[in-house]
Amino acid sequence: MIIVMRDNAREKEIQQVVERIKELGYTPHPSRGAKKMIIGIIGDLNREELIDSLGAYPGIDKLVPILEPYKLAGRSFKDEPSVIEIAEGVAIGGKEILLMAGPCAVESEEQVISTARAVKRAGARVLRGGAFKPRTSPYSFQGLHEEGLKYLKTAADETGLKVITEVMDPRDVELVGRYTDIFQIGARNMQNFYLLKEVGNTDKPVLLKRGLTATYKEFLMAAEYIMSEGNYNVILCERGIRTFEDYTRNTLDLISIPVLKKLSHLPVVIDPSHGTGHWDLVGPASKGAIAMGADGLLIEVHPEPMKALSDGQQSLKFEKYAELVEQLKDIARAVGRDI
Amino acid sequence: MIIVMRDNAREKEIQQVVERIKELGYTPHPSRGAKKMIIGIIGDLNREELIDSLGAYPGIDKLVPILEPYKLAGRSFKDEPSVIEIAEGVAIGGKEILLMAGPCAVESEEQVISTARAVKRAGARVLRGGAFKPRTSPYSFQGLHEEGLKYLKTAADETGLKVITEVMDPRDVELVGRYTDIFQIGARNMQNFYLLKEVGNTDKPVLLKRGLTATYKEFLMAAEYIMSEGNYNVILCERGIRTFEDYTRNTLDLISIPVLKKLSHLPVVIDPSHGTGHWDLVGPASKGAIAMGADGLLIEVHPEPMKALSDGQQSLKFEKYAELVEQLKDIARAVGRDI
Amino acid sequence: MIIVMRDNAREKEIQQVVERIKELGYTPHPSRGAKKMIIGIIGDLNREELIDSLGAYPGIDKLVPILEPYKLAGRSFKDEPSVIEIAEGVAIGGKEILLMAGPCAVESEEQVISTARAVKRAGARVLRGGAFKPRTSPYSFQGLHEEGLKYLKTAADETGLKVITEVMDPRDVELVGRYTDIFQIGARNMQNFYLLKEVGNTDKPVLLKRGLTATYKEFLMAAEYIMSEGNYNVILCERGIRTFEDYTRNTLDLISIPVLKKLSHLPVVIDPSHGTGHWDLVGPASKGAIAMGADGLLIEVHPEPMKALSDGQQSLKFEKYAELVEQLKDIARAVGRDI
Amino acid sequence: MIIVMRDNAREKEIQQVVERIKELGYTPHPSRGAKKMIIGIIGDLNREELIDSLGAYPGIDKLVPILEPYKLAGRSFKDEPSVIEIAEGVAIGGKEILLMAGPCAVESEEQVISTARAVKRAGARVLRGGAFKPRTSPYSFQGLHEEGLKYLKTAADETGLKVITEVMDPRDVELVGRYTDIFQIGARNMQNFYLLKEVGNTDKPVLLKRGLTATYKEFLMAAEYIMSEGNYNVILCERGIRTFEDYTRNTLDLISIPVLKKLSHLPVVIDPSHGTGHWDLVGPASKGAIAMGADGLLIEVHPEPMKALSDGQQSLKFEKYAELVEQLKDIARAVGRDI
Repeated sequence: MIIVMRDNAREKEIQQVVERIKELGYTPHPSRGAKKMIIGIIGDLNREELIDSLGAYPGIDKLVPILEPYKLAGRSFKDEPSVIEIAEGVAIGGKEILLMAGPCAVESEEQVISTARAVKRAGARVLRGGAFKPRTSPYSFQGLHEEGLKYLKTAADETGLKVITEVMDPRDVELVGRYTDIFQIGARNMQNFYLLKEVGNTDKPVLLKRGLTATYKEFLMAAEYIMSEGNYNVILCERGIRTFEDYTRNTLDLISIPVLKKLSHLPVVIDPSHGTGHWDLVGPASKGAIAMGADGLLIEVHPEPMKALSDGQQSLKFEKYAELVEQLKDIARAVGRDI
Repeated sequence: MIIVMRDNAREKEIQQVVERIKELGYTPHPSRGAKKMIIGIIGDLNREELIDSLGAYPGIDKLVPILEPYKLAGRSFKDEPSVIEIAEGVAIGGKEILLMAGPCAVESEEQVISTARAVKRAGARVLRGGAFKPRTSPYSFQGLHEEGLKYLKTAADETGLKVITEVMDPRDVELVGRYTDIFQIGARNMQNFYLLKEVGNTDKPVLLKRGLTATYKEFLMAAEYIMSEGNYNVILCERGIRTFEDYTRNTLDLISIPVLKKLSHLPVVIDPSHGTGHWDLVGPASKGAIAMGADGLLIEVHPEPMKALSDGQQSLKFEKYAELVEQLKDIARAVGRDI
Repeated sequence: MIIVMRDNAREKEIQQVVERIKELGYTPHPSRGAKKMIIGIIGDLNREELIDSLGAYPGIDKLVPILEPYKLAGRSFKDEPSVIEIAEGVAIGGKEILLMAGPCAVESEEQVISTARAVKRAGARVLRGGAFKPRTSPYSFQGLHEEGLKYLKTAADETGLKVITEVMDPRDVELVGRYTDIFQIGARNMQNFYLLKEVGNTDKPVLLKRGLTATYKEFLMAAEYIMSEGNYNVILCERGIRTFEDYTRNTLDLISIPVLKKLSHLPVVIDPSHGTGHWDLVGPASKGAIAMGADGLLIEVHPEPMKALSDGQQSLKFEKYAELVEQLKDIARAVGRDI
Repeated sequence: MIIVMRDNAREKEIQQVVERIKELGYTPHPSRGAKKMIIGIIGDLNREELIDSLGAYPGIDKLVPILEPYKLAGRSFKDEPSVIEIAEGVAIGGKEILLMAGPCAVESEEQVISTARAVKRAGARVLRGGAFKPRTSPYSFQGLHEEGLKYLKTAADETGLKVITEVMDPRDVELVGRYTDIFQIGARNMQNFYLLKEVGNTDKPVLLKRGLTATYKEFLMAAEYIMSEGNYNVILCERGIRTFEDYTRNTLDLISIPVLKKLSHLPVVIDPSHGTGHWDLVGPASKGAIAMGADGLLIEVHPEPMKALSDGQQSLKFEKYAELVEQLKDIARAVGRDI
């Protein structure tokens, strides 16, 4: 942390700050320039508490953080990429790219089973599907809840797939955990701290979606919330950020892949379906993601997108998904990965 | 809702869409231009479900919503401004502007009581203070929890103030409700739908903070979630939006006041402390808010900002707060309001 | 400037950076912490060139600027607010708030003269009107050019008003300068550096509009471009920034008023017409602006908004404008200013 | 264009609008719903002028554009992708991906010649280099101007490369045109309409960079400005947009590639150097761009990035560039393109 004093800070004000830093248990390093006085504090410190403790001191112009605020999620905690095991023989973060696919919302047993079979055949290892749906309107379809979880589990068991599904309420973590292999935390809940802590208290992998306007730092701090409870199995998922563009539903931030992998040891997954909102952009987005080093893809697939209760316009039909996976294999090979 | 077909949409595709609209129970109104075919659906419809139902149809270029998606929160539901009673003799939305003030975080009984007395003297009617604190870092001070709620309640009872405090977890609604007069929902939880429903099931007023990058429409839809459960006592609170500016903590969107009051009948409160992040901007921001028609102000006041555990840099000292209230009275008078 | 070295920076890399700083003529101040090495450079330096000179050095984690990049536009250059004289008896930046008003585009001699008379009567001192119009579409009305300038000048001369009008092309500065008292630089041209230099070479006041997504720093750096050529008569104008909100044309950033006046000595004007895009928001926005310390208002007024060739929906009729000015006088008085 | 009337619009107001539409030469198509009246205007119309003409009418709630505002730049004007010839045997938009590379700023003859040789050897066909530099600060290095253009031309002639360089001032178009094969319009000048018209009056290809916060529509409208003057040889270049992320210089919007190619027939180029601001992200970004269908890459290469006068931190050394091009060949092959 660097404390920049105002041009006209008085000697007394500088002394106050220096004393306060010592009181907090840190060592101040003052340097005086022609115009500005700056005071460095170098060491392992809590940035948020330091800002709180010094923010109101007169004479201070600004506080400039230097160290990254996350610990467990960062590369300085663990320099090797983390490989997270989801089940025996199913992992993410290694050489093999993990394919997760399925309908946006679970609508019926038949829909889930037929989709599970199709995505399994195409190469997916994990079945996605929402039983609890976050909807902008209270009047929209909110999911089948436990019934939906059961359909997912049945379909997964029958096909040998693993399950990923969203949990939205801390009170539902136990229930959802009975059916799923991976907890999904949605973008709107990226900073729902009580929910993060609750899944942090389980030992199941958690796929954490980036908030619509979260910075990488905020995203990793949300992962830190889960990890600080003891669950290190966090998978980061980019699903599009809000920009001024309205042609696409969101702007898929593909450059997040190399950046997050540089800052963190956690695996990175791309959701091109929500990320673009258009089924015909899912293909190009997936290709870019693989070329740029993504560890997994989460794609919406539906037997009849035109009849979908949710997100039909961004869902792929079975055959389109299978074709896409074939094309992705060539790109994976070109960058030294397997699908 | 207007459905715009692609330039080259085939007759069969147009027919499919027309049929689907009828299936959903609406009446399609097709109009054919030189280049484009458009199909209108006029009536009381659920926008989100309609988009879901039609989004994947081939031949459709885009879906353009016409009606606002909120019902209970909008002016078409209730044309008069809502006056919400907080307790006998304390209301918001009428001629009198409601002042709410207190520390960011509850730190000690003494801190809360001294602040309660000071803000009461200056003219506040409601005491604010956080017992559950949403923090970016899991390692930061997270609040005193129930102990903090007790301090707040004691201080309020002693001074005759009412209490507003934040609830973050649906499991805490009952507990917090025992101590508070107004539930505060924080910006990060604006779309925590289970929490919204939970406070929607109480009959206490709810001050709903706008999410950092929420549009007015999304803000009103979050209010709609609460109202659709039966609790119509929602107070809208603008607390700064995220922009590219980094000098201020957020960009306080003051034009939201006349816009929200035009779109909705709900009262509008401004939080100039979080909205700016600088104590010396709280004064100008409050003056602007009153001049533009705000129904209330939520301001951070602390006995010793330099010793605050949270947000000291944006908190006013007692005397500064009292001076500001005096200045605000002149502006309130100039726009026909009372403080 | 603070240079933060990577955790694992080698001694040789640190030495290279230290040497390079000396080569550039500055004094490095290294401090070593438990994990990080930081190197301060305190002094009067060119941030952009320093970043360019050091950006590619291995071992550097990041460069953190400390001093503000602007010199002439900042408070450290001149601590008193600047009062800019537009003509004898007409100034901006003092106790009196300057009202500028007129049509968006100059359409005819009659339109301009009738508007000039109306706004003069209401209290305006400066007549606005566009003869060169920046339009998103090349197929839209682009303005009357020199003919429009003549109408403006005639109307101003007849009514005793001064003229403000936009210049878009460096080749037109001389021509426009023959007719106008204040050059207006539009938001899209805030970083049209050749145009800034050209008006910087005149001695006429320049009203510089903030770019749609410019930070305060970038805005002041654009003012610096004009001032560095010798013309210190720069007026800053906030006209709305781009946010995710689509209800309003732009989001008027009123908190920019106290911030810009804290960072800079230059006067600040608000354009509530472009800033909101709705004529019925011009009133509330103007009231907020005056309450928050604006030095002037630039408002669109049109004899018949329904017949306007440009921006009719945000223009006030004559009587509405006159009424608004009356209401603003009360607020000005409440904050110790005159209209 | 759809005109949505207010819920309470009076019959007279509706008639006024209908009359005005007829006056403007269009055919109104009114449809009446339970709550709302909407009036469609279908046909080839000028959206901006229509908004201007109707915006101020009482009773109108909003105007909803339906048709895209660009004509020449859109797919409905030309359905086949445009292949633009830069010189004999050098084209963009076909099967072969065009590589453009060179230093950010031209600094010396030697620097340019050595870079030209290196990038030619690696596979580039066009040499980039700035002689006129847009800088945020008036005190920064602004380029070598005509001297720099001469160095570029000499280096290109010697190596058989073509030249791309930026023009910033309409007065310099003739001068720059004497030395360059492609005009580059920088992001800050995307809406410098006089400059766009000036290059639109030449017959040289123009590489138009997307503005920092421009939507796809605005980007294509800027291309339309150039094309409407008769020069159809426009190349679209994505170079990063402004988001809330501050780790990278900008956020490179790679999904723009498939979207722009769907909306427009013009070729799309990616600039991963400005787009990311970090040399070690240039590789992943380039791979993603090729996988997603980019027609060209514009990359900064410098003999000694540590000595660069501008943008050293995002420039590749010769050998890194050559290595990258080799890796890109594999990805190009996987998507059926050549490098």
